[in-house]
Amino acid sequence: MATIRRRRFAKGAAVGTAAMAAASVIGAPAISQNRIEWRMVTSWPKLFPGGGTGAVRFAEKIEKATNGRLTIKVFAAGELVPAFEAFDAVQRGTADCMNSASYYWQNKAKVLSVFTTLPFGMTNYETVAWMRHGGGQELWDEVYAKFGLKGFHSSSTGVQMAGWFNKEIKSSADFNGLKMRIPGLGGEALRKLGATIVNLPVGEIFGALQSGAIDATEWVGPWQDLAAGFYKVAKYYYWPGMHEPAVLAETSVNKAKFEALPKDVQQIFAYVCSEEYLQQSSEADASNAGALATLITQHKVQLKHLPEEFLKAYGKGWNEVLTELRDTGDELTKKVLDSYYKFQREQMSWSRIGMQEYLNARLVGFKFN
Amino acid sequence: MATIRRRRFAKGAAVGTAAMAAASVIGAPAISQNRIEWRMVTSWPKLFPGGGTGAVRFAEKIEKATNGRLTIKVFAAGELVPAFEAFDAVQRGTADCMNSASYYWQNKAKVLSVFTTLPFGMTNYETVAWMRHGGGQELWDEVYAKFGLKGFHSSSTGVQMAGWFNKEIKSSADFNGLKMRIPGLGGEALRKLGATIVNLPVGEIFGALQSGAIDATEWVGPWQDLAAGFYKVAKYYYWPGMHEPAVLAETSVNKAKFEALPKDVQQIFAYVCSEEYLQQSSEADASNAGALATLITQHKVQLKHLPEEFLKAYGKGWNEVLTELRDTGDELTKKVLDSYYKFQREQMSWSRIGMQEYLNARLVGFKFN
Repeated sequence: MATIRRRRFAKGAAVGTAAMAAASVIGAPAISQNRIEWRMVTSWPKLFPGGGTGAVRFAEKIEKATNGRLTIKVFAAGELVPAFEAFDAVQRGTADCMNSASYYWQNKAKVLSVFTTLPFGMTNYETVAWMRHGGGQELWDEVYAKFGLKGFHSSSTGVQMAGWFNKEIKSSADFNGLKMRIPGLGGEALRKLGATIVNLPVGEIFGALQSGAIDATEWVGPWQDLAAGFYKVAKYYYWPGMHEPAVLAETSVNKAKFEALPKDVQQIFAYVCSEEYLQQSSEADASNAGALATLITQHKVQLKHLPEEFLKAYGKGWNEVLTELRDTGDELTKKVLDSYYKFQREQMSWSRIGMQEYLNARLVGFKFN
Repeated sequence: MATIRRRRFAKGAAVGTAAMAAASVIGAPAISQNRIEWRMVTSWPKLFPGGGTGAVRFAEKIEKATNGRLTIKVFAAGELVPAFEAFDAVQRGTADCMNSASYYWQNKAKVLSVFTTLPFGMTNYETVAWMRHGGGQELWDEVYAKFGLKGFHSSSTGVQMAGWFNKEIKSSADFNGLKMRIPGLGGEALRKLGATIVNLPVGEIFGALQSGAIDATEWVGPWQDLAAGFYKVAKYYYWPGMHEPAVLAETSVNKAKFEALPKDVQQIFAYVCSEEYLQQSSEADASNAGALATLITQHKVQLKHLPEEFLKAYGKGWNEVLTELRDTGDELTKKVLDSYYKFQREQMSWSRIGMQEYLNARLVGFKFN
């Protein structure tokens, strides 16, 4: 896993020792004592499509772009620590970085959901705009600094599906008493409708659905849901993904260890996060259409739209959760939410004119035979 | 412009010559004869918001992440070559790379529009999915290789606006005889409605509108259109941007020169393209909402929606252009179009369930006071 050893000498270079030293910056092998080896823990099963395969590819890209100066050994969930102990492992230095999602760390700070996704919140492109140009990254830095971490986004799922259910949802009342796997603040909002909420790492969801420990689950979108096999144990597949418009996953680091890296390696690390953000989010987009078709035609999954009455009720429940969270008295939480929602309102005014109306107009004007 | 000289010696390193040589991989200064200096030409005025500022930031990031091994001197349109001669300059080696948009090179190959944007075509996220997972990049490589170039996408405008007009558009008939600045195949489609089409670099549009040499223009979106000042010489601002759902700009290179770079520098170059893609596309998203408000409230611009009858007529014209292009007998053109549209049809099936329906559902469920 990205641990291929580099050749000790430049291939075909007919040069003496002095010349080797002088030419050492370009194309020459790294000197072993200057090699840094990092450990990355993840919240995903080994090579699970998206996060699992992405983490390995991330490590390979870092090794190539740093010419072997930084190598990263990737551990799947459970190999070094369990899926939901990645945060603690990076904080205490057992690992140097993690590939996970900040809304799994609500027990550390509830506001961390904001840096992953929020119900009826910003889309992936709107969230990136907030992170880079609306103060979002600085706020995430402020929250994570309290734990000795620094966060980077390194992928996005895009809009998710609402999830898998074993009974039809005809109104918001059907959530009363329902046991559902749904993480983050999106789960808290569903609790307002009477649902019992649990969070489980993906490796444990299938068994819980099969045994009846839970009645329903959301996971990601068609591609990753197909890989998880939920169609075998749930009948109805609901949309739209109002609770998770875009899970932005993280490759977050131990802050002190990151700052000890050479400056150029820090830059490369950040840029490989951007590269993988594009690679992984586009892989989901590219794979979802085919996977959805497979689920419907091959596995006879029943695709269903959530009723508008539910969307309104869920929006109301979500608003209660947000109001309570903003009013807990924690200044940083309030600052994060105020920043996010000021930005979202502006983004909604532009998305309506831009993306939303374009998608509508395309259905009017598109044809090519 | 990214030409800050690096210190000749590592700061605070109390080491002898031999140790300096041994420690040369991490944090040590580049040796001058191994420094590579490139020239980047652009199609934008100096520091024009987006492409102009982005090109300079791109060069700075490359210099930092390569530890000064590759520096890039950026030339605005007209400084080394005119805006629309960037392609030729990179092809003949006058410059090493360019920041521009491939649909400006229709005189080289009409199909190059596909790698920028197409009317009623794929959104930015759909296009990235095609480029990375649907064979798009390989096809672009194949087209550009004929000219000794290799293309990288390094920004996206997101959904654009339809443009600036001095008379109201009440039906598609109003385009008959209209002189409009609109590049690429989107312009060809408008020609089917009787419009006279010209292309001009942004630095020449304002004067052409003011003098009456053209009746209308499209440029980008609110942020960049505000910067260009078109509100001073045109009254109506139309949406949606059916002709350009997302202009993906390029930082394309002379292929032979790129392949002569050290392998790790090639990787870094590619990843800085990804980084700037996110930085520039999110800057447009972040800036458009405020700019649109300024245009409407401060400059009294009249925002207007194109009639549905026009959208249909434009779709029909566009279909004619596409059919003609596919049937020209050029195999590579046909291969590119077939790949693009197979992928777009799949993406549309997923976007309708994902992004489009989410944006609709958000208007139903969102509130936060």
